[in-house]
Amino acid sequence: MKKTLREIAEFIDGDISGDADIVITGVSGIKEACEGDITFVANPRYFALIEKTRASAIIASRELLTTHKKPIVRTDNPSLAFAKIVSLIAPAEAAHIKGVHPTAVIGKSVTLGKDVAIGAYAVIEDKVSLGDNVTIYSGCFIGHSTKIGAEALIYPNVSIRENVIIGSRVIIHCGTVVGSDGFGFVSLKGLHHKIPQLGTVEIGDDVEIGANVSIDRARFNKTVIGSGTKIDNLVHIAHNVVIGENSIIVAQAGISGSTIIGKGVTIAGQAGLVGHITIGDGAILAAQAGVTKSVPANTMVSGYPAREHESAKRVNACVQNLPKLYETIKELKKKIEELEKKISQK
Amino acid sequence: MKKTLREIAEFIDGDISGDADIVITGVSGIKEACEGDITFVANPRYFALIEKTRASAIIASRELLTTHKKPIVRTDNPSLAFAKIVSLIAPAEAAHIKGVHPTAVIGKSVTLGKDVAIGAYAVIEDKVSLGDNVTIYSGCFIGHSTKIGAEALIYPNVSIRENVIIGSRVIIHCGTVVGSDGFGFVSLKGLHHKIPQLGTVEIGDDVEIGANVSIDRARFNKTVIGSGTKIDNLVHIAHNVVIGENSIIVAQAGISGSTIIGKGVTIAGQAGLVGHITIGDGAILAAQAGVTKSVPANTMVSGYPAREHESAKRVNACVQNLPKLYETIKELKKKIEELEKKISQK
Amino acid sequence: MKKTLREIAEFIDGDISGDADIVITGVSGIKEACEGDITFVANPRYFALIEKTRASAIIASRELLTTHKKPIVRTDNPSLAFAKIVSLIAPAEAAHIKGVHPTAVIGKSVTLGKDVAIGAYAVIEDKVSLGDNVTIYSGCFIGHSTKIGAEALIYPNVSIRENVIIGSRVIIHCGTVVGSDGFGFVSLKGLHHKIPQLGTVEIGDDVEIGANVSIDRARFNKTVIGSGTKIDNLVHIAHNVVIGENSIIVAQAGISGSTIIGKGVTIAGQAGLVGHITIGDGAILAAQAGVTKSVPANTMVSGYPAREHESAKRVNACVQNLPKLYETIKELKKKIEELEKKISQK
Repeated sequence: MKKTLREIAEFIDGDISGDADIVITGVSGIKEACEGDITFVANPRYFALIEKTRASAIIASRELLTTHKKPIVRTDNPSLAFAKIVSLIAPAEAAHIKGVHPTAVIGKSVTLGKDVAIGAYAVIEDKVSLGDNVTIYSGCFIGHSTKIGAEALIYPNVSIRENVIIGSRVIIHCGTVVGSDGFGFVSLKGLHHKIPQLGTVEIGDDVEIGANVSIDRARFNKTVIGSGTKIDNLVHIAHNVVIGENSIIVAQAGISGSTIIGKGVTIAGQAGLVGHITIGDGAILAAQAGVTKSVPANTMVSGYPAREHESAKRVNACVQNLPKLYETIKELKKKIEELEKKISQK
Repeated sequence: MKKTLREIAEFIDGDISGDADIVITGVSGIKEACEGDITFVANPRYFALIEKTRASAIIASRELLTTHKKPIVRTDNPSLAFAKIVSLIAPAEAAHIKGVHPTAVIGKSVTLGKDVAIGAYAVIEDKVSLGDNVTIYSGCFIGHSTKIGAEALIYPNVSIRENVIIGSRVIIHCGTVVGSDGFGFVSLKGLHHKIPQLGTVEIGDDVEIGANVSIDRARFNKTVIGSGTKIDNLVHIAHNVVIGENSIIVAQAGISGSTIIGKGVTIAGQAGLVGHITIGDGAILAAQAGVTKSVPANTMVSGYPAREHESAKRVNACVQNLPKLYETIKELKKKIEELEKKISQK
Repeated sequence: MKKTLREIAEFIDGDISGDADIVITGVSGIKEACEGDITFVANPRYFALIEKTRASAIIASRELLTTHKKPIVRTDNPSLAFAKIVSLIAPAEAAHIKGVHPTAVIGKSVTLGKDVAIGAYAVIEDKVSLGDNVTIYSGCFIGHSTKIGAEALIYPNVSIRENVIIGSRVIIHCGTVVGSDGFGFVSLKGLHHKIPQLGTVEIGDDVEIGANVSIDRARFNKTVIGSGTKIDNLVHIAHNVVIGENSIIVAQAGISGSTIIGKGVTIAGQAGLVGHITIGDGAILAAQAGVTKSVPANTMVSGYPAREHESAKRVNACVQNLPKLYETIKELKKKIEELEKKISQK
């Protein structure tokens, strides 16, 4: 879609220096941009690239004080502004499937909102409810009585089991599984008897879930992913986990059963959490942290077993210094022996 | 399904105190229960909830000595008893698909047992054999000559490659892959040449496998999962691994090629094992353990590289104490210097 | 396929001792082999098995100096030779699907090479291009404008998003996802706004990718997997990662955004790399390593945070010795106290 630079600047509440009438036809990264594209530079470190890019206009932060040959749009948050422009100039929706494919299997008593799109060979079981503008790609399975909110986007080969509740504008990437049985057994004389997992999963609005993630249903009640939370690829979320709003769970992290995660928490890549603990609002769990105890709000922990990060760093510095320490102690030993000799001689 | 409390008590071999004639219509957790439900409390810590629950009857352990207004069924193992009751009152089978969907692609010389259910768009290749009451959900792929035992339950979008053998009553959750090629290459002058993976996978009876797991086929012969073993989500099992009976492999653990795991072993979440080692019966590998050597039977190991757990805990306590130790050593150094000064002055 | 031992020896450039005219009808491991099979033994440790195997002929390294009753083919690299013979005697291709299944959904302007095979219920979107002899199994999704090179083999239930480029002879195992959105957000007042991921993924020739892997598309430009690189199961590759040629990424490893991996690098199982670092050619990252900084070429690192491996081993030896060290320091303390007493008494 073509837009003038003036229209774009108004859309993102930015200030233009240079020709406001030029026409923008595409969006791109600063290195990959061609003529007609608009690009952006958020970090002052990269301001030098403005002179080199082939883009026709650049969005920059207000920290950019220099003047340039090409038109610049200055704004408070260039990254966010650029994300908005992408949806204006190159709407991704254009690429998504439209309509219900004739091969989609739709069960009984299914409720479809306006302009729902369902891909080839998707299977929608009985009593499913899909909100307006929901897109479900080919090969997806939606179990019976599951509800999916408006504008949700479910990529190919996702499996969502029965009775799950998914909010509006949720994005789920390929291969992800929602609502599989929690891992629960009663062990008796060495045999493991399955504990039925009778609960479900409830996912809030504006959640994004990466590829090949697994989110288990609860034993009773529900596993909860709070609104605005973003989950990366290959994450494991066990039964009865409750995650607050606007948290970030990075790739390959794993959260064990019944653990409670607060709001605005960051769980970095490959971190693992035991079950039945509580992570306070705003806490940060470092990459690969092995979290065995509850973590207070606004605290950063790292290492295995995870400890408060600054203290863990001090301990780690001591560890790295150990070979030297062993030398020091050898010397001290020698000195003491010498002292003992001297004293006994006196 | 409705049952009287008397019928339930008989079914689980429990003793009723209170009205045995009340009718139970549902099962639920103690906090979520409604009128008509039966619930349970296994841990004495939660006995106080008995007075608060809306459930009509409660299963409890024989440790519960107090009397209550509501009927109580006392039994040896309330968790296990409750799991049994779930299958009596709210049989999950009711929800599963029935019959062979007309869109299922069934190859030549396929053997179907009695009452097999196959979902829409499932693909069953030639010479596959499915036992009685097998359920295969939509989107699954079953490669040629694979055999699946009676009452197995395969959830949507599972891929099982050719020549695999799967036992009876096995449950496989969505997105899991069984029989992919082992990761084997001959490296020559920096190039990696694929080693054909000619073996297969054999899974015993009563195994449960979580979502998005990968189990590779053997180079020759077979990768083996012993009967009764339970595997959680996102676990990786490499070629030629052999796992004994009734072991537990928690989420995101990874087992490298040709490693042998005994019976009744517990591998906790995110633990990793190198190839070609042996884990003895009843061993416990702690979460995130990096296991680089064989582990004797009935031994617990933790940490990286993994060591006997009690010793690892002692070492870790020493590590946490290092900043203090550095202070101590500083002081000792000072004292020695003072001693040296004093001695030289005498 | 039947071959004489003479034909086989010529094919792998090996020297026969024994009857060159025997007919070989199968290939197998040395323990599993039956009459008619050829097998191999690469490691001198296993030379003793030559007398026990039921195989009709054995490929061995030139280090095998003894004479045997059964025919032996001596060659430089028995493993590689055997891999070649497998493709001669038991061509795996025979088992793969042939032709385009009538249920495959093929979009507009799709280019199909010669002898392309597409399985049941696969979905090929508009403008996709598939090279000669490409095999795409059932349940796969290939997004619009994606290009796949000749002889690529895509196993069931793989999802490849739009605009991806995949080289020739690439193998992708079941459940893998290529081209999912990178995990990128702008966080503003606690809310995370999606950054559109406008780039793509480019995979070179002869790459093999395991089961349930996730490879994200770039924000701009492309995520790159170099030719000849082999990736194991459940690996996570984030947006804008660039991996050089002939590297090895073992199961459950994770590489964060924009990190650059050189040629011939080995990343062992469950290793994790932060974003925006560079790993030099030939570097080795040990299993479970937590790599927080760039690694020079031909360097091995291990541990968390990862350090040069020899030094990490020394440090780790010191750590394991800590309980003893604490004892030593206690003794030193005592000796110093005694010395202090003695001196004050003199």
